[in-house]
Amino acid sequence: MAAIPGIQRLSAFDGSEDDFGARSVRLARVRDLGVPVPDGLALSFDFVEKFAQSGIIPTFDLPSEFLSIRASAGQAAWGGVPAIMNVGLTDQNLTVLEKKIGRQGALEIYRRFIKTYGVRVEGLDPEDFENLYYDQLKLSPTLDAAALETLVETSMAFYADEVGQPFPQDAGEQLVNCLRAMTRAWNKPTARILRRAKGAPEDARLGLIVQAMAFGLGDGNGAGLIQFVDQGSGQGRISGRYLPDAQGQDAVTGARTPHLATIAEREGAGQVLPSLEEIAPDALKALQQDHDKIRRALGDSFQMAFTIENGRPSVLDLAPARRSARASVRIAIDLAEDGAISREDAILRVEPQNLIESLHPQIDPNARRDVFGNGLAASPGAATGKIVFSPEAAMASHAQGETTILVRTETSPEDIRGMHAASGVLTVRGGMTSHAAVIARGLGLPCVVGASDLRLNPVEKTLKSADGRVFHEGDVVTVDGTAGHALNGAPRTIQPELTGAYTVLMNWADEVRSIGVRANADTPSDAQVARDFNVDGIGLCRTEHMFFEGDRITAMREVILAEDETSRKAALDRLLPMQRENFSELFRIMEGMPVTIRLLDPPLHEFLPHSKDEMGLVAKAMDIPVEQVIARAEDLREFNPMLGKRGVRLGITMPEIYDMQIRAIFEAIVEIARSGGDLVTPEIMIPLVSANREAELVKLRVDQIATEIRDSSGCNFAYKIGVMIETPRGALRAGDLARSSAFLSFGTNDLTQMTYGLSRDDAGRFMRDYVNLGVFAEDPFHTLDLEGVGELVLLAARRAREVNPDITLGLCGEHGGDPASIRFCKIADFDYVSCSPYRVPIARLAAAQASLLSQRAKSETRAAAE
Amino acid sequence: MAAIPGIQRLSAFDGSEDDFGARSVRLARVRDLGVPVPDGLALSFDFVEKFAQSGIIPTFDLPSEFLSIRASAGQAAWGGVPAIMNVGLTDQNLTVLEKKIGRQGALEIYRRFIKTYGVRVEGLDPEDFENLYYDQLKLSPTLDAAALETLVETSMAFYADEVGQPFPQDAGEQLVNCLRAMTRAWNKPTARILRRAKGAPEDARLGLIVQAMAFGLGDGNGAGLIQFVDQGSGQGRISGRYLPDAQGQDAVTGARTPHLATIAEREGAGQVLPSLEEIAPDALKALQQDHDKIRRALGDSFQMAFTIENGRPSVLDLAPARRSARASVRIAIDLAEDGAISREDAILRVEPQNLIESLHPQIDPNARRDVFGNGLAASPGAATGKIVFSPEAAMASHAQGETTILVRTETSPEDIRGMHAASGVLTVRGGMTSHAAVIARGLGLPCVVGASDLRLNPVEKTLKSADGRVFHEGDVVTVDGTAGHALNGAPRTIQPELTGAYTVLMNWADEVRSIGVRANADTPSDAQVARDFNVDGIGLCRTEHMFFEGDRITAMREVILAEDETSRKAALDRLLPMQRENFSELFRIMEGMPVTIRLLDPPLHEFLPHSKDEMGLVAKAMDIPVEQVIARAEDLREFNPMLGKRGVRLGITMPEIYDMQIRAIFEAIVEIARSGGDLVTPEIMIPLVSANREAELVKLRVDQIATEIRDSSGCNFAYKIGVMIETPRGALRAGDLARSSAFLSFGTNDLTQMTYGLSRDDAGRFMRDYVNLGVFAEDPFHTLDLEGVGELVLLAARRAREVNPDITLGLCGEHGGDPASIRFCKIADFDYVSCSPYRVPIARLAAAQASLLSQRAKSETRAAAE
Repeated sequence: MAAIPGIQRLSAFDGSEDDFGARSVRLARVRDLGVPVPDGLALSFDFVEKFAQSGIIPTFDLPSEFLSIRASAGQAAWGGVPAIMNVGLTDQNLTVLEKKIGRQGALEIYRRFIKTYGVRVEGLDPEDFENLYYDQLKLSPTLDAAALETLVETSMAFYADEVGQPFPQDAGEQLVNCLRAMTRAWNKPTARILRRAKGAPEDARLGLIVQAMAFGLGDGNGAGLIQFVDQGSGQGRISGRYLPDAQGQDAVTGARTPHLATIAEREGAGQVLPSLEEIAPDALKALQQDHDKIRRALGDSFQMAFTIENGRPSVLDLAPARRSARASVRIAIDLAEDGAISREDAILRVEPQNLIESLHPQIDPNARRDVFGNGLAASPGAATGKIVFSPEAAMASHAQGETTILVRTETSPEDIRGMHAASGVLTVRGGMTSHAAVIARGLGLPCVVGASDLRLNPVEKTLKSADGRVFHEGDVVTVDGTAGHALNGAPRTIQPELTGAYTVLMNWADEVRSIGVRANADTPSDAQVARDFNVDGIGLCRTEHMFFEGDRITAMREVILAEDETSRKAALDRLLPMQRENFSELFRIMEGMPVTIRLLDPPLHEFLPHSKDEMGLVAKAMDIPVEQVIARAEDLREFNPMLGKRGVRLGITMPEIYDMQIRAIFEAIVEIARSGGDLVTPEIMIPLVSANREAELVKLRVDQIATEIRDSSGCNFAYKIGVMIETPRGALRAGDLARSSAFLSFGTNDLTQMTYGLSRDDAGRFMRDYVNLGVFAEDPFHTLDLEGVGELVLLAARRAREVNPDITLGLCGEHGGDPASIRFCKIADFDYVSCSPYRVPIARLAAAQASLLSQRAKSETRAAAE
Repeated sequence: MAAIPGIQRLSAFDGSEDDFGARSVRLARVRDLGVPVPDGLALSFDFVEKFAQSGIIPTFDLPSEFLSIRASAGQAAWGGVPAIMNVGLTDQNLTVLEKKIGRQGALEIYRRFIKTYGVRVEGLDPEDFENLYYDQLKLSPTLDAAALETLVETSMAFYADEVGQPFPQDAGEQLVNCLRAMTRAWNKPTARILRRAKGAPEDARLGLIVQAMAFGLGDGNGAGLIQFVDQGSGQGRISGRYLPDAQGQDAVTGARTPHLATIAEREGAGQVLPSLEEIAPDALKALQQDHDKIRRALGDSFQMAFTIENGRPSVLDLAPARRSARASVRIAIDLAEDGAISREDAILRVEPQNLIESLHPQIDPNARRDVFGNGLAASPGAATGKIVFSPEAAMASHAQGETTILVRTETSPEDIRGMHAASGVLTVRGGMTSHAAVIARGLGLPCVVGASDLRLNPVEKTLKSADGRVFHEGDVVTVDGTAGHALNGAPRTIQPELTGAYTVLMNWADEVRSIGVRANADTPSDAQVARDFNVDGIGLCRTEHMFFEGDRITAMREVILAEDETSRKAALDRLLPMQRENFSELFRIMEGMPVTIRLLDPPLHEFLPHSKDEMGLVAKAMDIPVEQVIARAEDLREFNPMLGKRGVRLGITMPEIYDMQIRAIFEAIVEIARSGGDLVTPEIMIPLVSANREAELVKLRVDQIATEIRDSSGCNFAYKIGVMIETPRGALRAGDLARSSAFLSFGTNDLTQMTYGLSRDDAGRFMRDYVNLGVFAEDPFHTLDLEGVGELVLLAARRAREVNPDITLGLCGEHGGDPASIRFCKIADFDYVSCSPYRVPIARLAAAQASLLSQRAKSETRAAAE
């Protein structure tokens, strides 16, 4: 046969995935390994496309009289069009098949083929064929050969009636029409949408495989699916479904109870039906050996579709073994340890996001889910507890050892203590970067936000679902922060385990990664979590969070409400030792690792209570008239707090607070040195800078206080001062800022807000619509916007390095935990990213992958140049 | 005498302002014209600096035995150090002076010199010398020669006592010490600050003039000041002060009543003392002729200091004639019309800001000011009226023909009708670009915002000043929006007049300017004001302002509160004809000029009332439960409205409103065409774009609605679609946006807010501190920040022009009315700026100046290249 362009026989295949799709390449490779795969023809993307346009197909040698047609998409994960089997069967060659698998089997296959062809090629209703089947079954419950013969006839007659033409008796015509039906299905809008959801590009193309049929029908034959790793854990364990006298997907469609793969599996499931291990031990052994070969050669574990004919298995198709996120880690590590793939490949094989399941409890996939509220999956993991509607109630229950779910319209800094006490958080409003979401992620607390289908009545203390159910304080509910659901009751959960495989993967990742991973840690407990996750330092300590703890909020409120310099100073003097103590603890936990401390950032009104009642309490506690509290709150109220008097603007116009903080940092260092510890070199970070002079003025104060404390203590400590780049103007002026800064750290949360002119707290209302409409390709608060924010970051990095090549560059927004953004930081040659403690493992893995990908890109470029 | 570097005789002067300062050059030029100016030596900046460092001065020929020393700064406007007169006078040469002006005059001068020298050179207290004088006056009230002799002696004794050395009798020593005292005074910190406030650079330098004394003492002699234009109007009119037997500033210090310049002036002032015209008619005539020569040669009108000796006047010094802002226009025009300067110079001569006085009523500079509140000068002009505390009260008073001042904590869109009814606005909060400020400027309404020293109690309806005064509703107060003051009572005001000179200047400006000036006009009345100011089009019509008028707010609220699509549609259908009518009116007024219409921009919650009471009224009016209004308002509430769901974000997620607006625009065009008018080409502008896809989606709707209306009406109108660049990301992506945009208009208010991360409404609290501390060189909402926002604008303009060279570029923020920002737009080669109607004349003049300066820069570059 002369070679036809775009057609290759699997048994002599040398095409690529880019031309023929993943399945063709995989089947050909597996066949090359000596695994019994029925031979077939791979049709290339170009061939299929040309055929779809012209409808003309060249004649070519078919691998068999009876054929299956399978889709071969660019990547296996994109899915494709279901296979069509038994193509080529006609009245004439039915006898050929009869000889192979008996008359009954042949007729059953013919019946099925007529139905499939009618439905897939001519668009008939499958229901109609089912009716014919069940009608016949009523007449002859055993469905013997005669009955099947009648069924074939009625099916033919129905087909001819509906289509207006008899069922085609030409194998070539059947083939062409089936190929056409496959391409049509591929191009349907719903198929496109499904594919895109799985990551396929808009213009993903279709390859096809025309393969010889291997029949599982007839006595002693059968068909099944098998895999060799446990779906949940990734450990080696055989599981499968096998159905004698069957073909294709029969074993999993549930028409008959399938046999399981092994005795162990059968016993585990309490099944009496003999397992494949018992029915056909040699076939199972052969499959296992085949899989071992494939696993080593292709570097992955697979699920295989097989038939057994005359006791011998054939592998019809194979796809990467099904696996949970957690299992993917174990499988990758095992493959590398067995030498099937390299360590680097193992690192690249695990989706960083998949580590989340290793780090948080999850609802058991098999548990019943009674969802009563839908929101955003703000912080992963599952938590069950009694509903509480106030932080006070959460703390009270916590004191009694009860677990609670804190339900709020939205949270504010006053709720932080309540959040600490709760096991999970559910809010009715807010987006992925709302206060509740950010804090919950920081605390590793399962959290759903913006569950706008719920109605919260804080006065009556009720939570009403869209379907009319009313939940009261004390009702037990579960927050699924991985899925974004609020569930009634306490579904079964799976506890996280940082297994051996996880530890191995993390160690390997750390060996290859060349970009630091720090944590955003505000308190000693945050810092401890981060250290436990093997962090490289603290990239962002938000000092204001220290002010919400214990009595500090009272002292902070006294600072704000002070009528004169003296009483403000007195209140600050009370805060100083508390803050110093916090810093000492942080420094001690981090044992000499870098600690970046951001000076006070939020506007002062965030520290005052919001309701009149709470203001009354504050006034009483401070022994001042409530009118004074109200007036001050009114004075401080802002239209757009995000763009208000905060950060360095406060530092300059009310320098006493920064002075106290700077003093606390240096005194903490001295304290540690005096108690015999090593000298710490803190990194002091100035927030919200938009003009160089802002940074200069703060730097002057820092230097002055450092000199004072050095002189008075005799302790000659060092320190670094840097700027947080959060405003577009800060980015544009990075050259100025870099001149006297030891580091610049990009606060990409705020930078994204300002570059887009979009408040993260308010964006939640329309972000879903925006992403669905394709207005934004992604939520820019989730994945760094490369075209806008990214350009500013790159421009700033370039300008900063031009004037100060030694400057340290970091990123400390939420993006610091996002793998795509970490890749960007690697490309921009940043020194580190900083993320919330619970995302540190994800960032470490993503950083390792970014380093590997950069290395590979470099060596490819080098190779191309040579 | 060998020439000494850095010293030039005025009679043979060829130095420059850059070396010798403005006064030396001016005096030398005037002397060259034949005007009798006493000869003298000009000392250069370098000379003075070297002298100040070394203290050594070379011997040189002095122009006279008796000398005055004057400062000569780089520019006259910077001011300088007061002159020291009579230097060189000693016991020995006192007789020489006696011969010139008599013994009594000579002794009086000696006495003065000892005092001046003691104070200026030795730092003695002037009070002590005054005491000696008054002591002597008590003993001998006529202060005859003998008494003066005693006074000289006691002064000498006091000097020797204090200084520890006798009064120096060496003329050279006196000169050196006086020169040293002058340079010392120049370098004092307070002098530096004063200079910088007048626009001098940090390193401004001092030149000096050592001039022969011309004495006005003695019989028939005298000294005075005279100018030849009216300070208030700029019209030709002689005014002056003359004191016989006097010297220097005597005529204006008020020790004796001076004679006025002319009979007309004397009669106008009701003075009987004979005028200079009567005392020395020839001298006055000579001064007038001298001034005519100077005016023609130097191209400005001057105030001259003169002495008369033996009937002949000498000009000692001259400075640009004092003039009000309004007078500066008239003076420049007259100079150009007399050929003393070119028209171009006349245009460049007038500070655009000075036109404000021509456009608004002002408080008479001589009126008594009882200031009780200080705020920001948000909108210029003065208005007097009774205090009202609510827009309703303003409207009620307006209906009764009473003028009112609306006093609010801050204003919101609901106050607009009240602002229309009031004559002036005063707010306790808010910055230069707060709602009140922006609207007031748009309405040409005098307005003071952020008067934070006032305490407003809206419940008790009282306004309390810092000094404890309490104002009630109905009390008459005055708002001075030019100075930023709230004044008690009704001080005298001067009414604006757009005089002939103003009109001439504007016409000349329009002839040379090459950048368009459009207006930000939202309503037909705005548009009419703008047209009256000869605008080139409307650059920004904020359609939402149309929704606050009359019943429209009700319809708009129905749109927002609609529970379903149908009732929302019904409410929009009611708005459509109103909006269409508005557009028709605008188009009719603008008669084919460009009209840029911005689609709805603010977030929906701005249209809902804020207080529970008002919500109740709305609920009642719409016959819905108040809970529904409250719930919807709560739903719509935003943390940071500036960064919220507004602009194109609303347009995309709730397209019905934009659809209605687009339809109204096109239907208005059709209506005008049908009624025989010309086809208008509207410019539709999409606000708050941060991603290209946002603009594309709106453009699709616009094109679709246009096609519909073209088809149904048979009217084949054209239209342009463009984008408002307000977000940093919009600026960065200008290349994308320009591809399918006819124009880009930079909304620099919001762009500044987002680039700085600074809310204009909240920045007022610390902007003054920030500018005073030099953190920001200028308020960036007032003058465009070139280093940050300006870079984004230039980058966007470049990217836009690269892909679409024909694109129209404009600026429509508040900066559109700021001269420095207009110069920037000219350099960036923008097509137009757009500003509030009342700033159109200022913008026209600034645009003309920008064009002239660009032309001059170009021809200078060309000349330098040749």
